[in-house]
Amino acid sequence: MATLTVPHPVPSAAEDAEQVREAVKGWGTNEKALIAILAHRDAAQRKHIQLAYEEMYQENLIKRLESEIHGDFERAVYRWLFEPIEREAMMANLALTKNLNYQVIVETACVNSPNELLIVKQAYHAKYRHSLEEDVAAHTGGDLRKLLVALVSTYRYGGDEIDLRLAQSEAKILQDLISQKELNHDEIIRILGTRSKAQLNATFNCYRDEFGTPIEESLSGETANEYALALHMAIRCIIDPHMYFVDVLDDALSKSGADEDTLTRVIVMHAEKDLGVIKEKFQKRKSVPLEHAVDKKTSGDYKNFILALVGN
Amino acid sequence: MATLTVPHPVPSAAEDAEQVREAVKGWGTNEKALIAILAHRDAAQRKHIQLAYEEMYQENLIKRLESEIHGDFERAVYRWLFEPIEREAMMANLALTKNLNYQVIVETACVNSPNELLIVKQAYHAKYRHSLEEDVAAHTGGDLRKLLVALVSTYRYGGDEIDLRLAQSEAKILQDLISQKELNHDEIIRILGTRSKAQLNATFNCYRDEFGTPIEESLSGETANEYALALHMAIRCIIDPHMYFVDVLDDALSKSGADEDTLTRVIVMHAEKDLGVIKEKFQKRKSVPLEHAVDKKTSGDYKNFILALVGN
Repeated sequence: MATLTVPHPVPSAAEDAEQVREAVKGWGTNEKALIAILAHRDAAQRKHIQLAYEEMYQENLIKRLESEIHGDFERAVYRWLFEPIEREAMMANLALTKNLNYQVIVETACVNSPNELLIVKQAYHAKYRHSLEEDVAAHTGGDLRKLLVALVSTYRYGGDEIDLRLAQSEAKILQDLISQKELNHDEIIRILGTRSKAQLNATFNCYRDEFGTPIEESLSGETANEYALALHMAIRCIIDPHMYFVDVLDDALSKSGADEDTLTRVIVMHAEKDLGVIKEKFQKRKSVPLEHAVDKKTSGDYKNFILALVGN
Repeated sequence: MATLTVPHPVPSAAEDAEQVREAVKGWGTNEKALIAILAHRDAAQRKHIQLAYEEMYQENLIKRLESEIHGDFERAVYRWLFEPIEREAMMANLALTKNLNYQVIVETACVNSPNELLIVKQAYHAKYRHSLEEDVAAHTGGDLRKLLVALVSTYRYGGDEIDLRLAQSEAKILQDLISQKELNHDEIIRILGTRSKAQLNATFNCYRDEFGTPIEESLSGETANEYALALHMAIRCIIDPHMYFVDVLDDALSKSGADEDTLTRVIVMHAEKDLGVIKEKFQKRKSVPLEHAVDKKTSGDYKNFILALVGN
């Protein structure tokens, strides 16, 4: 369920390009006009606007916008203009090559379906002439590396079938290792890194039924190191990615200054996909509409742009 | 360069099915006639013969053959009749679920291109409702598992670009660890398991140039355990798969009784692809034509079938 709204009928790409040109030409920029167009066009339409703009005005729209708008607003528009798969490859690359943000890598690996992850990895090859797995391995170390490389490498089975006996035996393995605080044991990485999501969810259900505590709770106290945090995150992404993003957004909006990078990432990557579900769950869990929380913690053109995507 | 030969013009699938029927009906089986047809049709033609046979005679050709022919001959024909990708998935599954034959897993992972491996993994999903990586993980253990799971999971970059400085630094890492006998170090698995084949070959070249010994020779004394053997095998498959198969065939034919399973596997899987190159290299290296070596060590219908595929 997307939150993106597109007007009907939608103007032609040439008309949109002309309006964008109006908004950026001369002194100053009409940010409102930019938002009114760009935040209300889907990926294919945004692509066509860029192509029409380039053809009509012999300049690259993204480069032009870079000189017109700034800060969080610019970064959000820049990310928004990319085609979704290419954007995801780019976000993973940024997360590795700027300050390491393993959260993005866990999300790429565990929120996507096996085939979606594969397509992101193919886009990554095409764009960076490297594999995602080698860049993850090169920019991380120790146990965190073992876990992240396993999660991004695997091509999980995508079907729904589950093997209940296997789920029971692997729930036991997980429980033994977690209770012994052996979180970095190879068996945990093997199970998380190779089983299908359906099978893992069956295993986590057995875990709760047998041992009385949801596995994510057993791990929620483990904040001692990045490995344990990444493990917890991966499990949450596999169990319920929407609730996971509810908490990511809540964290990003609970800081004294909002965490705009995280906010931008989640909103931009999900507005065209499932932000509607995340928004509903956010309101239910946090007792405040997502748009109010965003409104309170952000400002200026950035706020207007993000709210337009959230579906104010 | 394939060794498979197909007659021109080739009979229709219905004509072939009729001849096959002639060969199997009544008492006894005309193995010569079966070989004359089946060993001289490509994958698509074999598929069409099976479909025509099933339609014309309301029975499954593979099942009928199972009751007509036996032993190594039957196993070879059975493998040959499969479509190549499905056959490769099946061979990997057999290698895991019967007696563990990690050699087959190393070949699947390291001889195929990244996209070929991907297609085999997709066929594996479809056929076994599991991922190849989870079955490899479930049927192996210890260091061998770490290596094999890394090799089958990875989706390597498939391009030709190399980074020479990286090759030099990773050659040094490999040399340090090999000279310290730390073959099971995570860094070795990380490098082998994530880098592109082009990059790995550049690294192996640096290794030889810097340290005076080809990496495969540095490892050839390491026969102490399956992990070291699998590591050596993986490196050989990445450096020169054809020479690797020359030695596999030579080993299979050098035993007092030939190793028919291995012989069948290599011949059946490569006859339609690159067995011509392997055959040339075999003759050059072993000073005897492959067909002579096969002729000397095999017998009966099995021999005739295999020789037909080798291009006698």
